[in-house]
Amino acid sequence: MRGNTFGKLFSLHSFGESHGPEMGVVIDGVPSNLDVSIDDLQKELDKRRPGKNPENTERNEADMPRIISGVFENKTLGSPICVLIKNNNHRSQDYEAQKNIHRPGHADETTLLKYGIRDYRGGGRASARETVSRVIAGYFASLVLPRSIKVRALISQLGNQFQMDNNENNFFLIPENRLQLMQPQREQKISDYLLQLKKEHNSVGGTIKACVENCPVGLGEPAFDKLKADLAKAMLSINAVVGFEFGQGINFNQMTGKDSIQNRQNFGGIEGGISNGQRIDLKVTFKPVSTVNEYAKSGRHDPCVLPRATVIVESMIKIVLADHFLRQSAYSEYK
Amino acid sequence: MRGNTFGKLFSLHSFGESHGPEMGVVIDGVPSNLDVSIDDLQKELDKRRPGKNPENTERNEADMPRIISGVFENKTLGSPICVLIKNNNHRSQDYEAQKNIHRPGHADETTLLKYGIRDYRGGGRASARETVSRVIAGYFASLVLPRSIKVRALISQLGNQFQMDNNENNFFLIPENRLQLMQPQREQKISDYLLQLKKEHNSVGGTIKACVENCPVGLGEPAFDKLKADLAKAMLSINAVVGFEFGQGINFNQMTGKDSIQNRQNFGGIEGGISNGQRIDLKVTFKPVSTVNEYAKSGRHDPCVLPRATVIVESMIKIVLADHFLRQSAYSEYK
Amino acid sequence: MRGNTFGKLFSLHSFGESHGPEMGVVIDGVPSNLDVSIDDLQKELDKRRPGKNPENTERNEADMPRIISGVFENKTLGSPICVLIKNNNHRSQDYEAQKNIHRPGHADETTLLKYGIRDYRGGGRASARETVSRVIAGYFASLVLPRSIKVRALISQLGNQFQMDNNENNFFLIPENRLQLMQPQREQKISDYLLQLKKEHNSVGGTIKACVENCPVGLGEPAFDKLKADLAKAMLSINAVVGFEFGQGINFNQMTGKDSIQNRQNFGGIEGGISNGQRIDLKVTFKPVSTVNEYAKSGRHDPCVLPRATVIVESMIKIVLADHFLRQSAYSEYK
Amino acid sequence: MRGNTFGKLFSLHSFGESHGPEMGVVIDGVPSNLDVSIDDLQKELDKRRPGKNPENTERNEADMPRIISGVFENKTLGSPICVLIKNNNHRSQDYEAQKNIHRPGHADETTLLKYGIRDYRGGGRASARETVSRVIAGYFASLVLPRSIKVRALISQLGNQFQMDNNENNFFLIPENRLQLMQPQREQKISDYLLQLKKEHNSVGGTIKACVENCPVGLGEPAFDKLKADLAKAMLSINAVVGFEFGQGINFNQMTGKDSIQNRQNFGGIEGGISNGQRIDLKVTFKPVSTVNEYAKSGRHDPCVLPRATVIVESMIKIVLADHFLRQSAYSEYK
Repeated sequence: MRGNTFGKLFSLHSFGESHGPEMGVVIDGVPSNLDVSIDDLQKELDKRRPGKNPENTERNEADMPRIISGVFENKTLGSPICVLIKNNNHRSQDYEAQKNIHRPGHADETTLLKYGIRDYRGGGRASARETVSRVIAGYFASLVLPRSIKVRALISQLGNQFQMDNNENNFFLIPENRLQLMQPQREQKISDYLLQLKKEHNSVGGTIKACVENCPVGLGEPAFDKLKADLAKAMLSINAVVGFEFGQGINFNQMTGKDSIQNRQNFGGIEGGISNGQRIDLKVTFKPVSTVNEYAKSGRHDPCVLPRATVIVESMIKIVLADHFLRQSAYSEYK
Repeated sequence: MRGNTFGKLFSLHSFGESHGPEMGVVIDGVPSNLDVSIDDLQKELDKRRPGKNPENTERNEADMPRIISGVFENKTLGSPICVLIKNNNHRSQDYEAQKNIHRPGHADETTLLKYGIRDYRGGGRASARETVSRVIAGYFASLVLPRSIKVRALISQLGNQFQMDNNENNFFLIPENRLQLMQPQREQKISDYLLQLKKEHNSVGGTIKACVENCPVGLGEPAFDKLKADLAKAMLSINAVVGFEFGQGINFNQMTGKDSIQNRQNFGGIEGGISNGQRIDLKVTFKPVSTVNEYAKSGRHDPCVLPRATVIVESMIKIVLADHFLRQSAYSEYK
Repeated sequence: MRGNTFGKLFSLHSFGESHGPEMGVVIDGVPSNLDVSIDDLQKELDKRRPGKNPENTERNEADMPRIISGVFENKTLGSPICVLIKNNNHRSQDYEAQKNIHRPGHADETTLLKYGIRDYRGGGRASARETVSRVIAGYFASLVLPRSIKVRALISQLGNQFQMDNNENNFFLIPENRLQLMQPQREQKISDYLLQLKKEHNSVGGTIKACVENCPVGLGEPAFDKLKADLAKAMLSINAVVGFEFGQGINFNQMTGKDSIQNRQNFGGIEGGISNGQRIDLKVTFKPVSTVNEYAKSGRHDPCVLPRATVIVESMIKIVLADHFLRQSAYSEYK
Repeated sequence: MRGNTFGKLFSLHSFGESHGPEMGVVIDGVPSNLDVSIDDLQKELDKRRPGKNPENTERNEADMPRIISGVFENKTLGSPICVLIKNNNHRSQDYEAQKNIHRPGHADETTLLKYGIRDYRGGGRASARETVSRVIAGYFASLVLPRSIKVRALISQLGNQFQMDNNENNFFLIPENRLQLMQPQREQKISDYLLQLKKEHNSVGGTIKACVENCPVGLGEPAFDKLKADLAKAMLSINAVVGFEFGQGINFNQMTGKDSIQNRQNFGGIEGGISNGQRIDLKVTFKPVSTVNEYAKSGRHDPCVLPRATVIVESMIKIVLADHFLRQSAYSEYK
């Protein structure tokens, strides 16, 4: 009942401290007989790898996954899949000094208050490093879903200078780009901005927008496990996430009903908590990393997590969809 | 695994169609030996009662609760508490015509797609009437929590005309008021606006702001059942809710880290997903009710659900807190 | 997390005290579009009805089910099904004297120790009356399962005088009989024996044997939710059950491996915790009711619960099978 | 929802195939600040180690545990504890020939029918090697329980020649002995018998008796999670277990109520599904291993699993008790 498990039919159990020997995840409920590609899994992990961009933390870890169960001759067995990732690059001595320092906006103090003990070498379980578990599980979730489903997350806002909300119809046409921007043409300016923040031991918040195309109809389990509710939980379970919206989101607070029904896409692909087959639209807001000023002087802080977080958002979406897809499948014969 | 259960140690199982004989809820995990007051429960139910204001739906139901288990001589027994509410005021003939009509923004179509069948007499499970289950459970949740906890939700925004975000420090000093406004002095103007919308068969969205004072420290179970994550799920499980924020919420996407740590309250009482003992601040955005135009001509639609929804928001918060309070209690001896 | 819920995809939430106004159950996870027959449900309930035989308790209740949700025009909606049964025949005054009496072998004392409070008017939740919830759920479970499945439970042993274990191949050919005996020809003798016990304020234990024909292969979820494990839990959750065996059961403790594999049916239809498609064989032992001597003088005690318990055993088997059937269905496309 | 998780507040997630690189378990819900001793954990694992006795399988594995999370400076952190055990001694070539052989009484065929794929190098998940996960979790469960609790399991019956049921009052006075017998004086005879069976490629079943002293009162959660029900599930989840009894168990089917209440210990420490503080008595029957005749010629089969299974029985009991202890703790303040 401690909260390290997510999902019901497709479920993941996350474990590992950022400065322990390994991080890992056990994924249960992956159907049998699915083809597994280590290369594809590695590609997903590379998207959140620290050190991938000069704009991010300098903690550099290869994050090579080691599958120790549930896969045989590159096929899933239907048994739980355990995947491990080594923590190579921890320099515990960096953190020793911080044993009694509780950074604002962090879990340092609340962890100690809750458990009466804390792995002070680093963030422990509260480290964003825990999110490797989600990227790994997201890969396996993608094997469960119909191949036609497309999930993509991009940065739509970054601090008070960069508002990049594109015409949504073109969302899936935006080229791949290193910083995961909705407007790749602004990459140079944003890179300069982030490097400057890093030098100043500062950080910045922002918003990630995500879309799902070709989601099957009928996913979501009212009254409580509505698709929007489980997506919200998934997003808010990510470190630093402080807001969730779907469809027109908070814009709805300025709209009348007559306005709202002009365009069915305003409802973001979810009606009554159940997917309606249209594109699902989400927005997820991240606070700026609280490791600033003197805490950020080791060179290992991240001025902006969003370029590495888009894959985490995508992964959590896939996990929720895979879980609901299996849940609905259990009843599909009776419909 | 159908999604009608919420909570782990304090859990509720909701049931009932809006046009069936009764709605109800089974609440399990309520500790024994707590004093139960039907009057207090009735007061909570009265806050969401349809027909309580002329501005709301004219469907008028007394919503008198009948406790049929788990309480003996006004004390909880520790066994599951079942509470029933009669559906007196349904006029099924009103809805017969709508058998084949699927209202946009509603669950009509998605329900049919998901289950292959639908109780067309009304919203069925998708009716906002289901939320009585949450108000009942919220009352019992309040018995579980320390008496010092205060939870309050008020309307902070209503359409594009009424922005009412008060100085937060005064949140608990705002007088009780019929429409649950953060600025009660605007009640007449807002009442006029809502009655006008009703006449026009229109509706409006808005935002509810909620605060929790004196929340114990240490509630929330990372990595996935962070307090913010379970609150987000709770809020998004409510009909018509389309956005959730805590602390500075989406304002964070315009802030730097140095700005953000100026005021610890920016983090909204939750750090690392765990309550830190400070005031918890939430914002919940509702879309406008989609029952407009010809669908709204029966006089039984609601131009604005927010005045009746504040108690639902409060109830879901209490439910989440009670659940996490019990979860933490299980381990409290070892801390 | 209080333990009033059973099952994962097909789940029931039981509630009600024996001397409260009503008993009930909420069943979630019943697929939509199934035909419901109140007559068939009533027939199942009649099998466990107190007072059905002169050999049983004289507490006589009609146990008429009232479905208040989840069924519309005799079809399941896919939403939670709540069914209520009135407690008509409780005579609380009978029990008032027993307020401070804790009967050995009963939950009287342990309930008080656990919860610090007890509904002393009767057994409360610990009353065998709680098992109506299982019979109701068992009926709905039977709607989920393939029509070819047959489940039957009969008394194979009754005290030290009646050993009735028939040739198993004929199990389903034994005629229906009032006392649910494997050897109906002994009904008169057994009836005399039970009436004599009743007169003496005594009771007797026994064993019920159950079989399942045409169970689909592949049900059961190792490592922990093996079919045998969930059946064991289901059986031991029934009041007064003290032993569970499947296949050759405890006879295996006298066998060698070479003996055991002579007949595959020795394994009772379950290998590796998964159904193999052969007949499933179970044995369930009940202790004698502990209400004897002066506690049994009201005329409302039951000298032998087994004639009324066969339907409870059958119901719990159906519930376990329905749950596992849905669990396996979720993955069936990938096999 | 695949069944590799056991327990609610104290929960374990088991993973690993017998011929994969490692077996393992994630244990969540272990309170923080408990002292961990690798030596004590190793001692528990040694009790079930294959090859510990000449009478058992010759597959010899040291089973050295590697803790990779949840423990810091020999203290539990309150975060999930992952422990891994290497599979050193698998000789896959031994098994290659058995790719298409389905041994009766084994999971070979049912696994293939259920999942459509099977790790044919060995038992995969169905291997008794999976039970290391339980012994590891059992060690951590013992840290959660009050120190005064004592749990012991011994062999009380072995085939049709060795009936060893001792005077129960002396159960905890029986000396430690290599083969875990209730009558250690018969060790030589039993050893000879088992070595003879091994030579003959045969095996034998038996019964293990277990006792718990000083169990706190009030553990068990009716109606479904009665202590007896969860113990039954725990036992039946162990490979080869075919029967469970508590208290007088199946002897009750020959007793009258008046007989049964002569001795409160007949109820085996559980009344109404709740522990009453008296000694808990269980019996667990194992079928003989089905690997006999030609399947047993590799010298790596086990003629009798019981000497290695007593620690598994003890571990599962501790796991159930730890889980229920935490469940009850959550509510203990309100009693």
